[in-house]
Amino acid sequence: MRHAVILAGGGGTRLWPASRTRRPKQFLPIGTDPSETLLAATGRRLRADATWVVTGADYAAAVKEILPNARVLVEPAARNTAAAVGLAARAIAAADPEGIIGVFPSDQSIAGEDAFRAAADLAYRLAAGEDAIVALGIRPTRPETGFGYLEPDGPGPDGSLRVARFIEKPDAAAAARYVAAGYLWNAGIFFFRAARILAEIRAHLPRLAAALDDGDWSALPSISLDYGIMERATGILAVPGDFGWNDVGSFNALADIRAPDAQGNVAQGLLVAHDATGNVTGADPGHLIALVGVSDLVVVQAGDAVLVLPRDRAQDVREIVRLLRERGLDRYL
Amino acid sequence: MRHAVILAGGGGTRLWPASRTRRPKQFLPIGTDPSETLLAATGRRLRADATWVVTGADYAAAVKEILPNARVLVEPAARNTAAAVGLAARAIAAADPEGIIGVFPSDQSIAGEDAFRAAADLAYRLAAGEDAIVALGIRPTRPETGFGYLEPDGPGPDGSLRVARFIEKPDAAAAARYVAAGYLWNAGIFFFRAARILAEIRAHLPRLAAALDDGDWSALPSISLDYGIMERATGILAVPGDFGWNDVGSFNALADIRAPDAQGNVAQGLLVAHDATGNVTGADPGHLIALVGVSDLVVVQAGDAVLVLPRDRAQDVREIVRLLRERGLDRYL
Repeated sequence: MRHAVILAGGGGTRLWPASRTRRPKQFLPIGTDPSETLLAATGRRLRADATWVVTGADYAAAVKEILPNARVLVEPAARNTAAAVGLAARAIAAADPEGIIGVFPSDQSIAGEDAFRAAADLAYRLAAGEDAIVALGIRPTRPETGFGYLEPDGPGPDGSLRVARFIEKPDAAAAARYVAAGYLWNAGIFFFRAARILAEIRAHLPRLAAALDDGDWSALPSISLDYGIMERATGILAVPGDFGWNDVGSFNALADIRAPDAQGNVAQGLLVAHDATGNVTGADPGHLIALVGVSDLVVVQAGDAVLVLPRDRAQDVREIVRLLRERGLDRYL
Repeated sequence: MRHAVILAGGGGTRLWPASRTRRPKQFLPIGTDPSETLLAATGRRLRADATWVVTGADYAAAVKEILPNARVLVEPAARNTAAAVGLAARAIAAADPEGIIGVFPSDQSIAGEDAFRAAADLAYRLAAGEDAIVALGIRPTRPETGFGYLEPDGPGPDGSLRVARFIEKPDAAAAARYVAAGYLWNAGIFFFRAARILAEIRAHLPRLAAALDDGDWSALPSISLDYGIMERATGILAVPGDFGWNDVGSFNALADIRAPDAQGNVAQGLLVAHDATGNVTGADPGHLIALVGVSDLVVVQAGDAVLVLPRDRAQDVREIVRLLRERGLDRYL
């Protein structure tokens, strides 16, 4: 059976103030459809036989509401993606020893759903037939320094590529070389047999294997699946493609995901603009953003906070997060 | 007896979204003290024997809460300042036939309260002793086109000036000439005997006199005290001064009223700024504005709306008001 494992335990502050500790990015309607949360879209676009969601205790109720047919696994503690995938793999292996797993982050936007499903279908087949670890590899559109890359090493079966190695977020010069050399973005979407990933965990992450046995996660280090397994495993394949994939890493990404309005602004929620263009705005339902004479700004109202910054500095929301912590204003995070 | 008449019936949209139909500017804490509404400050700074507030039925309860010792007169309908002053003058004349009235808008900020009270004291005395109409005249700090001007005509008693005429809002060239020639801003602050103003109303505004008699305001035209009386009456005096007077005509005015913080921003409510200077911000209590990398903007959150515009275009909030009406979004006004 094909199992989809959706990772929905994440926090993160890049979408502050829309994303908060209590409502992380996956619960925001910031994908292609402004009425659908990223988590709901992730669940909807999959075509697995069973869907599992790994999340934290604080988010379990919200997950169940959004994906009522999924089986929700609550992590004893947030310990990054290796632990989350390990937890799911154990549960799946117990229920379905021959189960094939696809792992999907819950906070990405994918516009090309048919192409995505075709690639996932191939990846599931390769994971089963070749007992491979298979990654979806996104064809880069820019020398992005915010993603990891997959270095290809010639063709694999059925149009896939063999992966020479996983590369962590590069600097700008390296990113440019990688894009020129045909490397792929690592989207964090992986496929493998449950038994295979559990074997990899036993081989490379023995402390995680032990924690999965005894349920004690208190001293477990926080390790990503990429770093803990993918950079060490061999025989990895990539299914390349361009699925209109977007990790929605900042509000600026909304301008890539959605078409602008007649005035050249991209608005989530209500916007009234006069002589204002190129802005990206977000407002809670029932709330209004009004702009006059400004351009290329991000303006976001969410709950009790408003953020304004230039689009080309959208990543600098981190400075606000830092200041809020510094000043004891964590209640706004 | 000295009576203070505070005019608190006004609406206006220049401070949108902080000011709304249901909560006009006089109910906002946007004067020198960020914890005091303009109306409360107006009432507090006066030293009259009795205080009267003229307002609309919708605002009467809020006025009573802010100024519990004032006598509140509810206008049958909003008909501008001549009618409001007429209503108060009648009530005062009935209670105190020799009463002297000072008229004060409820939505101005005055930093120099001692100087203001000294000027008002002189103006009350002149209104009583000379049976004069006396205006406070603000010494201009810039060739403002948003105010009316008083043309002086030589000295009057006790340091006052005789007023040759009242001038409505001029164009920029005329404003520059007026400032150079020593004209004064008309602050809408006037003093007169109750009997005197009622006589002027009978002489110049017979329809208003009739409406004050029969209480039927339905067909009464909307006429300002300036236009209806001041431009026609004779023997008017002005008491000149600079009281740190500010009519808070836009959010930009906050930068004149309050000292900037260490980063050069002026904030009403909570602001967290990184690499952002020269901004004027406003937020409801408990709400937060966060700015990165922007300068010289007005950013206001109030209730369910957020406004962003450059400080030098602060008056263009009118364009938003127009668009809201055009699009049937009046509920945000």
